[in-house]
Amino acid sequence: MIEWKNLNTLSSYKELGAKPKVSLKEVMSGASGAERVKKYTVPMAAGLDYNYAAKAVNDDIVDALAKLADEAQLTEKFEALYNGEVINTGEKRLVLHQLTRSQLGNDVVKDGVNKRDFYVAQQKKIADFANDVHAGKIVNGAGEKFTTVVQIGIGGSDLGPRAIYIALENWAKKTGNFNMEAKFISNVDPDDAAAVLQGIDVAHSLFVLVSKSGTTLETLTNESFVKDALKKAGLDASKHMVAVTSETSPLAGNSDYLDAFFMDDFIGGRFSSTSAVGGAVLSLAFTPDVFARFLDGAAKEDKLATQKDVRKNPAMLDALIGVYERNVLGFPSTALLPYSQALSRFPAHLQQADMESNGKSVNRFGEFVDYPTGPVLFGEPGTNGQHSFYQLLHQGTDIIPLQFIGFKDSQLGVDVDIQGSTSQKKLCANVVAQIIAFACGKDDENNNKKFAGGRPSSIIIGQQLTPESMGALLSHFENKIMFQGFLWNVNSFDQEGVQLGKVLAKKVLAHDTEGALKEYSDLFEI
Amino acid sequence: MIEWKNLNTLSSYKELGAKPKVSLKEVMSGASGAERVKKYTVPMAAGLDYNYAAKAVNDDIVDALAKLADEAQLTEKFEALYNGEVINTGEKRLVLHQLTRSQLGNDVVKDGVNKRDFYVAQQKKIADFANDVHAGKIVNGAGEKFTTVVQIGIGGSDLGPRAIYIALENWAKKTGNFNMEAKFISNVDPDDAAAVLQGIDVAHSLFVLVSKSGTTLETLTNESFVKDALKKAGLDASKHMVAVTSETSPLAGNSDYLDAFFMDDFIGGRFSSTSAVGGAVLSLAFTPDVFARFLDGAAKEDKLATQKDVRKNPAMLDALIGVYERNVLGFPSTALLPYSQALSRFPAHLQQADMESNGKSVNRFGEFVDYPTGPVLFGEPGTNGQHSFYQLLHQGTDIIPLQFIGFKDSQLGVDVDIQGSTSQKKLCANVVAQIIAFACGKDDENNNKKFAGGRPSSIIIGQQLTPESMGALLSHFENKIMFQGFLWNVNSFDQEGVQLGKVLAKKVLAHDTEGALKEYSDLFEI
Repeated sequence: MIEWKNLNTLSSYKELGAKPKVSLKEVMSGASGAERVKKYTVPMAAGLDYNYAAKAVNDDIVDALAKLADEAQLTEKFEALYNGEVINTGEKRLVLHQLTRSQLGNDVVKDGVNKRDFYVAQQKKIADFANDVHAGKIVNGAGEKFTTVVQIGIGGSDLGPRAIYIALENWAKKTGNFNMEAKFISNVDPDDAAAVLQGIDVAHSLFVLVSKSGTTLETLTNESFVKDALKKAGLDASKHMVAVTSETSPLAGNSDYLDAFFMDDFIGGRFSSTSAVGGAVLSLAFTPDVFARFLDGAAKEDKLATQKDVRKNPAMLDALIGVYERNVLGFPSTALLPYSQALSRFPAHLQQADMESNGKSVNRFGEFVDYPTGPVLFGEPGTNGQHSFYQLLHQGTDIIPLQFIGFKDSQLGVDVDIQGSTSQKKLCANVVAQIIAFACGKDDENNNKKFAGGRPSSIIIGQQLTPESMGALLSHFENKIMFQGFLWNVNSFDQEGVQLGKVLAKKVLAHDTEGALKEYSDLFEI
Repeated sequence: MIEWKNLNTLSSYKELGAKPKVSLKEVMSGASGAERVKKYTVPMAAGLDYNYAAKAVNDDIVDALAKLADEAQLTEKFEALYNGEVINTGEKRLVLHQLTRSQLGNDVVKDGVNKRDFYVAQQKKIADFANDVHAGKIVNGAGEKFTTVVQIGIGGSDLGPRAIYIALENWAKKTGNFNMEAKFISNVDPDDAAAVLQGIDVAHSLFVLVSKSGTTLETLTNESFVKDALKKAGLDASKHMVAVTSETSPLAGNSDYLDAFFMDDFIGGRFSSTSAVGGAVLSLAFTPDVFARFLDGAAKEDKLATQKDVRKNPAMLDALIGVYERNVLGFPSTALLPYSQALSRFPAHLQQADMESNGKSVNRFGEFVDYPTGPVLFGEPGTNGQHSFYQLLHQGTDIIPLQFIGFKDSQLGVDVDIQGSTSQKKLCANVVAQIIAFACGKDDENNNKKFAGGRPSSIIIGQQLTPESMGALLSHFENKIMFQGFLWNVNSFDQEGVQLGKVLAKKVLAHDTEGALKEYSDLFEI
């Protein structure tokens, strides 16, 4: 029997708080540090490893975290989720994004439809479509092949697919899996669409319009923008557009589109990268097989997230350590630092996935919680960050827990040997050096050159960023967010906090304003 | 007589802390809110306005902030800085980035050189060079015009120039001020350089190598990378490269480069956008005149920062309110939210400028301070952010102060009218709506749909993002950071926190490791 309880009502949470704290500086020095690096590691899918040696935990604290996981029924709740219970209680919806890539438990049948079959069928439909485009069977009005795919979407219909496209673009080019250049239009700022349209050959561009409801104002506005451009170029827009939407949306079964691919209300926007939302653009840009491999990596990682043993469940352990840092140690934000230029937009995607899911103040029963929930998440790729905000991370007055990601091999395999090492070795050496610098610090007579250390980090290490490891990474963080939501007892799958702005923006556009809202509107001459 | 004192030793700071707090929700409602929007605004340069109506302040608190500004001698310290005192005490250097765009006080003569003349001479040299490139007087080995400029630099040599290039690219294209496409190589990740090189026509590319010391490992590595590519293409690298560096660096007076443009030790990397570091790439990509207009906007804004009256000094007021939020109200981070796709990388630049400058724990005398200094700064463009992390900003358990930026007009002027309004109007309506939503919130029977409000924001409003307004924006934030550093009594102009990582990375590459460092190195097979 699953019980949803606030974090601070759990006896194991109180026990956790009473445990003696770990001096990271101490335990990460000398032989103890070496031992920890070997021991505090959890295998992930696709050859990745989650290493938490430089987190401020020890066996005693991990045991306490395991008890917390048990008492909070984390794996049971995950099981309920993937078996199709209504976990998104606010919107009264199932939460099925894992089902787009794997069948973890029982068949989930809703309104007579086996949902796994439904998602697989959409993948198949997308794959056939993409193969036809690549083979020149689906062509533009002049009978010529499409060379560019442009995703029109915002939020979850933009950040995840864009981050993954950028992550795999070089890999795909190197391995002969690259078919079409992808571009993205998201912002309602007219300069976004106008600039993208200036930079492409519209006659050979296929546009993927993504909106689950079919009513997202920004996206429909940008659609009109694009249709305008197609019309001005003398082209038939309906020959250049496909829709990704739900079956009940106005975009479905609409002759304005070449074809439509479906997701449904059980896939939250920020968790939709493995559904048709990511599937269409990624299958077109790369190949359906690349997308399938990406799903496979995610599926394998999802499987690990079902493990009851926290020491074998990297997402759950990562989630627990994060809650320990947020609620027991009191750290207010966290940084995601991939040592991979290809992951340059992955922090922006996770910023959405994490902050939109767990930036909540009420629990699942609508009661205000009296503890901090989701932290601020930000990040940029290393080594760039090292020459930027790392100063604050090392010597600022707040401690910011860090999540590193690094790979042994580059994607393109082009490198130079300078001062006895390749760029890739330098990249790896830097991330390794940073972990130790943050954990152990350095004493100095000059306080200005002193590093206090004690700044916790974990690292996910892989051989190379590939479709499989990208899928595993995505799944890891999605599941981490889910487990943290369970711990904080919030509903991670709604987003009521985005509504008020929409309502007020409509008022402004209708000139239905007064007070400060009217004055601001006047300043902008709206 | 200037005295450098810790923030919490100032009597005006104690007075400030004792002032009754403002209920933002209350004061921003009804007629009071309308009144505040009209009243709480400070003109900036280039037609911008800084509006702080939605900050949790009132006349009483602004008066207290003015007293704090006086007691902390903010304008006197700025005066000392621009008159050439050694403000960067850690590195024993002057701080002269304002001098690259204006002569605010006395002539600054150092080692017999009038520094203003020196910076102007470099600008002139760059302008002549850029004009010659544009006119086809300086050409590649085959006598053909260069079409692309590639900046090779990291940190301050990358983020600022890149953000400003992206900010003005569309404007320049629209106004006939666009000459060369610019690309940027920064990360030591070999995939960064390799991908950029794949995407350009190297035979018609001019590379700008930027390193003040001429010894930045990432940048020299990427230089070799590029030279390799040029050599493989049968090209003479020395005909394709210019250097931006200091006169004493190994890159100066070196026949490996077509030409060299100089900055010096008195320009910190993160404040170097208005020096040759930004000047070369921006003058080449656009025109020298565009760069001059950008400097002009910054110069005019710098002038405002000398104002003693906080109500007429937007940078100082913004700085004071930020310190009030950080130290009195206890908010740990801050978000920068430009409603302009062109400013998409401006938050990343300011993240560096702010966090690297004020992420410090010791004061100017090397004593540890006992109050929080620089906050975490992050941001993404609206409206994208609205579909992402705004959930946490509205309903999360922490309050995050916000800094909006918005413009009445788009840059490209291409727009569509949907549902009775243009995209640009929708964009403006959204930012206005957000300010009110954050400040005033909304009650609801369902706690999950309740918005507590009381979330403070300010907004900088302009007519259009142009070279002048971009310059003014940059100056505003640079000066805000400087004033906050004065308030926290830290040295905002050194960055000792980046050193330890460099030292340890060298050890890793030399295999001079033990303990945890060795184990991590082994995991990466270094």
